[in-house]
Amino acid sequence: MDSHCLQISMEAHKVVPPPRKSTLVKLRDRLKETFFPDDPLRQFKDQPWQRKLVLGAQYLFPVLQWSPNYSLSLFKSDIVSGLTIASLAIPQGISYAKLANLPPIVGLYSSFVPPLVYAVLGSSRDLAVGPVSIASLVMGSMLRQEVSPSGNSLLFLQLAFTSTFFAGLFQASLGILRLGFIIDFLSKAILIGFMAGAAIIVSLQQLQSLLGIRHFTKQMGLIPVMSSVFHNTHEWSWHTIAMGFCFLVLLLVARHVSMRKPKLFWVSAGAPLVSVIISTLLVFAMKGQNHGISIIGKLQQGLNPPSWNMLHFHGAHLGLVIKTGLITGILSLTEGIAVGRTFAALKNYKVDGNKEMMAIGFMNVVGSFTSCYVTTGAFSRSAVNHNAGAKTAVSNVVMSVTVMVTLLFLMPLFQYTPNVVLGAIIVTAVIGLIDIPAACNIWNIDKYDFIVMLTAFLGVIFISVQQGLALAVGLSIFKILLQVTRPKTVMLGNIPGTDIYRNLDHYKEAVKRPGFLILSIEAPINFANITYLNERILRWIEDYEEEEENIKQQSSLQFLVLEMSAVSNVDTSGVTLFKELKQSLEKKGVELVLVNPLAEVIEKLKRADEGNEFTRADNLYLTVGEAVASLSSAMKGSSSNMEEGTQAIVSHY
Amino acid sequence: MDSHCLQISMEAHKVVPPPRKSTLVKLRDRLKETFFPDDPLRQFKDQPWQRKLVLGAQYLFPVLQWSPNYSLSLFKSDIVSGLTIASLAIPQGISYAKLANLPPIVGLYSSFVPPLVYAVLGSSRDLAVGPVSIASLVMGSMLRQEVSPSGNSLLFLQLAFTSTFFAGLFQASLGILRLGFIIDFLSKAILIGFMAGAAIIVSLQQLQSLLGIRHFTKQMGLIPVMSSVFHNTHEWSWHTIAMGFCFLVLLLVARHVSMRKPKLFWVSAGAPLVSVIISTLLVFAMKGQNHGISIIGKLQQGLNPPSWNMLHFHGAHLGLVIKTGLITGILSLTEGIAVGRTFAALKNYKVDGNKEMMAIGFMNVVGSFTSCYVTTGAFSRSAVNHNAGAKTAVSNVVMSVTVMVTLLFLMPLFQYTPNVVLGAIIVTAVIGLIDIPAACNIWNIDKYDFIVMLTAFLGVIFISVQQGLALAVGLSIFKILLQVTRPKTVMLGNIPGTDIYRNLDHYKEAVKRPGFLILSIEAPINFANITYLNERILRWIEDYEEEEENIKQQSSLQFLVLEMSAVSNVDTSGVTLFKELKQSLEKKGVELVLVNPLAEVIEKLKRADEGNEFTRADNLYLTVGEAVASLSSAMKGSSSNMEEGTQAIVSHY
Repeated sequence: MDSHCLQISMEAHKVVPPPRKSTLVKLRDRLKETFFPDDPLRQFKDQPWQRKLVLGAQYLFPVLQWSPNYSLSLFKSDIVSGLTIASLAIPQGISYAKLANLPPIVGLYSSFVPPLVYAVLGSSRDLAVGPVSIASLVMGSMLRQEVSPSGNSLLFLQLAFTSTFFAGLFQASLGILRLGFIIDFLSKAILIGFMAGAAIIVSLQQLQSLLGIRHFTKQMGLIPVMSSVFHNTHEWSWHTIAMGFCFLVLLLVARHVSMRKPKLFWVSAGAPLVSVIISTLLVFAMKGQNHGISIIGKLQQGLNPPSWNMLHFHGAHLGLVIKTGLITGILSLTEGIAVGRTFAALKNYKVDGNKEMMAIGFMNVVGSFTSCYVTTGAFSRSAVNHNAGAKTAVSNVVMSVTVMVTLLFLMPLFQYTPNVVLGAIIVTAVIGLIDIPAACNIWNIDKYDFIVMLTAFLGVIFISVQQGLALAVGLSIFKILLQVTRPKTVMLGNIPGTDIYRNLDHYKEAVKRPGFLILSIEAPINFANITYLNERILRWIEDYEEEEENIKQQSSLQFLVLEMSAVSNVDTSGVTLFKELKQSLEKKGVELVLVNPLAEVIEKLKRADEGNEFTRADNLYLTVGEAVASLSSAMKGSSSNMEEGTQAIVSHY
Repeated sequence: MDSHCLQISMEAHKVVPPPRKSTLVKLRDRLKETFFPDDPLRQFKDQPWQRKLVLGAQYLFPVLQWSPNYSLSLFKSDIVSGLTIASLAIPQGISYAKLANLPPIVGLYSSFVPPLVYAVLGSSRDLAVGPVSIASLVMGSMLRQEVSPSGNSLLFLQLAFTSTFFAGLFQASLGILRLGFIIDFLSKAILIGFMAGAAIIVSLQQLQSLLGIRHFTKQMGLIPVMSSVFHNTHEWSWHTIAMGFCFLVLLLVARHVSMRKPKLFWVSAGAPLVSVIISTLLVFAMKGQNHGISIIGKLQQGLNPPSWNMLHFHGAHLGLVIKTGLITGILSLTEGIAVGRTFAALKNYKVDGNKEMMAIGFMNVVGSFTSCYVTTGAFSRSAVNHNAGAKTAVSNVVMSVTVMVTLLFLMPLFQYTPNVVLGAIIVTAVIGLIDIPAACNIWNIDKYDFIVMLTAFLGVIFISVQQGLALAVGLSIFKILLQVTRPKTVMLGNIPGTDIYRNLDHYKEAVKRPGFLILSIEAPINFANITYLNERILRWIEDYEEEEENIKQQSSLQFLVLEMSAVSNVDTSGVTLFKELKQSLEKKGVELVLVNPLAEVIEKLKRADEGNEFTRADNLYLTVGEAVASLSSAMKGSSSNMEEGTQAIVSHY
């Protein structure tokens, strides 16, 4: 029976090249995997053409999916949530517009049109659309590099709309060209570091309104802002500071309450509007503006004026505008997609990344025609929307209607709203972006990611938002390249009583097989790492031989077994590695054995190996176990190995 | 007995996290693998300090390794090879200097000092040091962008020496900082395409001297050169053309002969010098210069004048000079290292890449102090050197002495040498750089590499040398990133009669296991690919379920088995993938099972998985076989699966 067991496990299985595929077929598959991993057309498969038409329409306009079976009960919950986010959207809209150095009213415009567009095109049910802090900050700071918002406000406005247009164009084309994976390069680590940094930058900017300083630096960095704060102490207005402090406390408390009890979401949701109302009344009653409390001032009434005639596609600032569009576009896109995915996962429905990009992009293009600046799905507001029980995108419609009413009739009421309250609202909103526990978590899991995060954070605070980001992205790409240029090679050993071979450092019980050096290569083999792999493998052999000398082993190295299960690919440089290895091994009288080369790999090796040097049947095996078994039985070495060899196999049974 | 076999293979082996290592230890190991893969200090291990000193000196000055046992017989063969390469180096030196728009004599200077330096520092025995075509071409063309070599020849010369200095500095620091792997990014494919392109560019430049055109374009590209050739047909000098044609034929024949019979290496090696002598005599006899045959003209005599006072480290052109230094530096380095490795492999000795870089770099720095421009180990000349039987770097010394003699006494003889012959020599030299078979080979093995090669080739011809290179490098890095953002996921099946599981598309005999979806992921899981992997895996599941519906299978999916042997690493984003998968699978009532997570991976998963959701002992297995065995025995599904499950295992014995 033993012999029976033995015989079976000795008969090794052939490694065959995969079934032939034409280059075109391969190319098609590769392209499909690259651009259509989600296989969007699967639902159209074998359907009648009318059905296909309907499905197509629904694909383009998700509204058609849910509107047919929209019910009153759904509408009820959508109304509640819609009004809730409206009460949040109005003060935030005004505040974020100021953050972007734009007239406050633009913030309200941006909370009116885009939500309507999204309601038709968007596939997320919880996204609350509107301007967001980070995109506003970045747009403001980037445009301010070339044009002063106070000095030449019209041009500044035109540039803002134009960059919004480019942002939308960029987002939509990312979706259409199925290049959504580009935003994946803003990794979790980067985003956490970046958002924390941005939150700090944003809060620092608010010191102007919170302290009532009139002459404030135009720069963003930590140092310039701080110095300008403490060089203008004489401008600090104590009324403003007192007022700001009270409302900041009030808002933070509200936020804290809602965080403790999600049921009480409306506390933090309503707080901003309440504080706006109270503070406005206060200022109005006590003529605050005479006590040095700066107020918004007159705002014109009426709906979004058209702005397509304000778009600039030529002139000196085109470069800046495009750059701003790209960066704000990718930032707002990242936030929007992330929010969408988060809540989709919570409620267990799917949002199609590329479709979302088209929706958000188109929304911004339309926005740029109707006096809106960059908008997307905001984290904070969507959370409120979700807690308030939003069921469909109708809540966005409700919000935008409420904003419309405000624009038409309620604008005069904001005339006396003090800027200090807006500052307090922004600070409370962005403080949530600083996520300490997540940072600690990253430190625990992956130190390199932590460095990336830190780079993003410090880069944003001390250099600039876009450069900080670029630096962090560069670092994380460098890590990928480093993993490829310096792939791990580990020595495998036999786990006693089995024919399993595993990493010797990892599984302490694993034992070496005399005469065999078994290495597993853990990366694709290509131009970037052949030199390293060649050197490293030869060093493994030297170490092996040294060791043997030390322990006065007779049995010398006879087989170098390369376990290739983790080598997902080789390129033309990669195949030369095997030729060179083969040569240098022959000089040492060592045989090269390859185990489980994957489909593409064996294919390329066969093609490259005319001399049939390293892809002969007798040095290709399907598992290390089989390789060792059939080789040690054929081993010419001292009989002792022979016995050990077989004995180990027998012990398996 | 069966039951015995069965029982053993059923008892599964635990996946344990690897033995604890402190972050510092890990960091140290990582750094060592990155910067010291060849472990240069191993030879110093446990040696007495005097020995260590000797070894250290020998490490810095390889000359000390071979000089002690240098013999007369070695010297004999070195003399022969030395004289042979000298006869090649002198005409080539003059020609390449003209290629770089430098005075011809600089080419000879560069064949005198650097070889001496290399003989002391270099570790290759076959490298023949001197100026090379590509570096000369690139330096000439880049510097010409800002300074005209004819108009302001002194400044041009100064810039050339300065860029040589920077090239050397860059090369040496690459070696000292152990960043040698940077040159690996010039993959084989890129080099083949680039060299072919460069060869064509260089040959095109020679049309000026071959046709005797006086007013030639200053540009490099194919189109401008061709147009300038055919717009100046009236300048074509028929004497020149006739002469050029004859010598070109002569040289090509000689080259062909030596390629057929390596024994006759001296034919092609001597041919250039012979043609220089003949042509010079011809011109001198028939007063050729009066028939419109342009000649080199007067050359001053004497050895290299010092040039450190000519180095420019400030002023308008510093940027250009540094850029030129970097590019020529990396190009010449690549050629030098490649040549060194090639012949080291042939003769089976080792050249230490980083050490070579220091040697070449230092050689160029010294060169820049002594009126030499960028030099390195030349392909053609080293081949001749090797064939001529060079044994040590002494052949370089012999060559440099010969050049010295020429510089001291023979310069006047070159006065009447016609430029057309130099042109012919260059063309013959660079034609060898066009390697059609290698290109075909690349096409056969890897289509993407072929595209990269083509990019380099066309880029160099039509855009510019450096941009063509940059483009190609960018493409090949993009490929690496693409492989990471779109990793392969393949479905595994059981190879009948074994507990081996392999790719179903690859091994047609493999069969699916009912109730199991077994996927293998073939790349590290990180921020760049979690979104894709998530979508892709869910699609696998959908496909699986559809299929079952079609074939009216009762047994529904119960286990998703992820074979992770090829997942060399995860990062913080990577671990979230498993959390999300776990959640979405639970909704489908499918269990997530991980097989053979590698050391680093299981470590990070454990750390990230506080809830112990996806790293419980009962969903971690060492092999797919064991996972399937013990899970199907525990399977709650229809008894049929149960039987199949066990039956398959029994069939193994």
